[in-house]
Amino acid sequence: MTELDSSDVVRVRLDFSYDGGAFQGWAAQPDLRTVQGVMEAGLTQVIRRVGAIRLTVAGRTDAGVHARNQVAHFDIPREAWERCVNRSVKDPELALRFKLWSVLPRDVVVKRVSLAQQGFDARFSAVARRYSYRISDRFETRDPLRRGHVLWNRKSLDIEALNAGALTVTGLRDFAPYCRPREFATTIRELHRFSWERPTSGPDEGLVVATLEADAFCHSMVRSLVGAVKDVGSGRRDLVWLASHDDFSERSPGISVVPPHGLVLEHVEYPDAAEMAARAQLTRRRRQVADSADAPAE
Amino acid sequence: MTELDSSDVVRVRLDFSYDGGAFQGWAAQPDLRTVQGVMEAGLTQVIRRVGAIRLTVAGRTDAGVHARNQVAHFDIPREAWERCVNRSVKDPELALRFKLWSVLPRDVVVKRVSLAQQGFDARFSAVARRYSYRISDRFETRDPLRRGHVLWNRKSLDIEALNAGALTVTGLRDFAPYCRPREFATTIRELHRFSWERPTSGPDEGLVVATLEADAFCHSMVRSLVGAVKDVGSGRRDLVWLASHDDFSERSPGISVVPPHGLVLEHVEYPDAAEMAARAQLTRRRRQVADSADAPAE
Repeated sequence: MTELDSSDVVRVRLDFSYDGGAFQGWAAQPDLRTVQGVMEAGLTQVIRRVGAIRLTVAGRTDAGVHARNQVAHFDIPREAWERCVNRSVKDPELALRFKLWSVLPRDVVVKRVSLAQQGFDARFSAVARRYSYRISDRFETRDPLRRGHVLWNRKSLDIEALNAGALTVTGLRDFAPYCRPREFATTIRELHRFSWERPTSGPDEGLVVATLEADAFCHSMVRSLVGAVKDVGSGRRDLVWLASHDDFSERSPGISVVPPHGLVLEHVEYPDAAEMAARAQLTRRRRQVADSADAPAE
Repeated sequence: MTELDSSDVVRVRLDFSYDGGAFQGWAAQPDLRTVQGVMEAGLTQVIRRVGAIRLTVAGRTDAGVHARNQVAHFDIPREAWERCVNRSVKDPELALRFKLWSVLPRDVVVKRVSLAQQGFDARFSAVARRYSYRISDRFETRDPLRRGHVLWNRKSLDIEALNAGALTVTGLRDFAPYCRPREFATTIRELHRFSWERPTSGPDEGLVVATLEADAFCHSMVRSLVGAVKDVGSGRRDLVWLASHDDFSERSPGISVVPPHGLVLEHVEYPDAAEMAARAQLTRRRRQVADSADAPAE
């Protein structure tokens, strides 16, 4: 089912959101409630007679981490796809979305089902992942209705200091001091953006919001970067301390990892159709060894 | 402790928020987790040697209903108030807020503690209560992170039809068709505002949001009004059906009550200091008989 040129097989793309609070992360594990486990069970239930369906995801989030625009794909025989239509919805894309809706729990929402473009791979075609981390550092902005996805911080944070800290770790570099070690895995990544703001309007008014975008993140990298820079923003640490980690070739013990519930995978960026297949091949070659283990990479 | 002129007693105002999802409503009940129960226990714990503290609240919300800016008051001996200061915070207002923070669960947040103005009564001084009700009527706007305070509606809603319906029930009238019956209780209220919108930006982008403001609401009134008008907005009912309830002198069985989790008490309006005491006396006289029972009045 990996031969995409075969007209007998179709690749289906899912765009979806989840509240990670009640999940043990993305990756399927026996006897644990995971997003992958719940979604694959739902898909296997509604697309019958094709056996167990396996998902490939763009961002393998950790336990407790949320996603607002996660992307995954799976392959099925064309005739199974065409069997998805039902009496009221002739379009298999809409029909499958409605069917999934009725079998999935409320903490996972499939927003869109579509036939993938030629050469699309949810994981290897992605050119960037964007995460956000939300913090309330004042009593006034602690909203109990949003406590499931906002960290409540006792100390107030200084946006300028946060951005000064973030700047020092942005760019193409070895993020080993911020990654959980994995054998044979590269920790070289390009962090395109790491910025902090305190919006004065909109959904995050008054909160402190970090935005991080990279080609990819290694395991616990987002939460380690946020933790390290937050300590600079609260005055607990300074830029000299932050820079001292550059010398570490592995995870620095002094870096605190912030809790998962403030973290949301917000967006996965894909190239346009023409570049899609070429990009997937390139990335697959480059990271095949690195990411062969099945550990989460946020 | 009701004699406010006595210099021995102070009245303390609390401004707070809660996620109603895990509470059996506001009013304290034996063996049930209620907001009043949890808050009174917390206050009694941090303000010692004054016995059990009793709260008077602006809006007695039902089970599952949330509040973003709820207001309550309690009376304590002045010396107990002054005893609240601690080594780090000399101001009793800040000190009490910090103390409450450490004993209250995360689904209640006391945002402000202050000495009440002369004549202030959280319930009887209030001139208006404003509620909002949030609905997602499209797959695209179903956000699992906000499912605890947004209703997911299968049918799409028409804002114009919703507002046409809302207009017919606005004003000073007998809301008996929309209220759960209570002996000796008046159901005459003034609904200042009942409007619907679909914001194109901000925290509620794409959602359908109802705003209702009245001098006060009787039990289940907000959720019955939203339910009746939502049926007009989805095309299930029409304005003629809505108008037919005007003839009912008690609760209409055909009106559906929407679930509590979409409902948030957003704001309680108080007059300025000069009017405060006069207003409380007026309201108390007017509603003393009506509201003597202790049923929730949203």
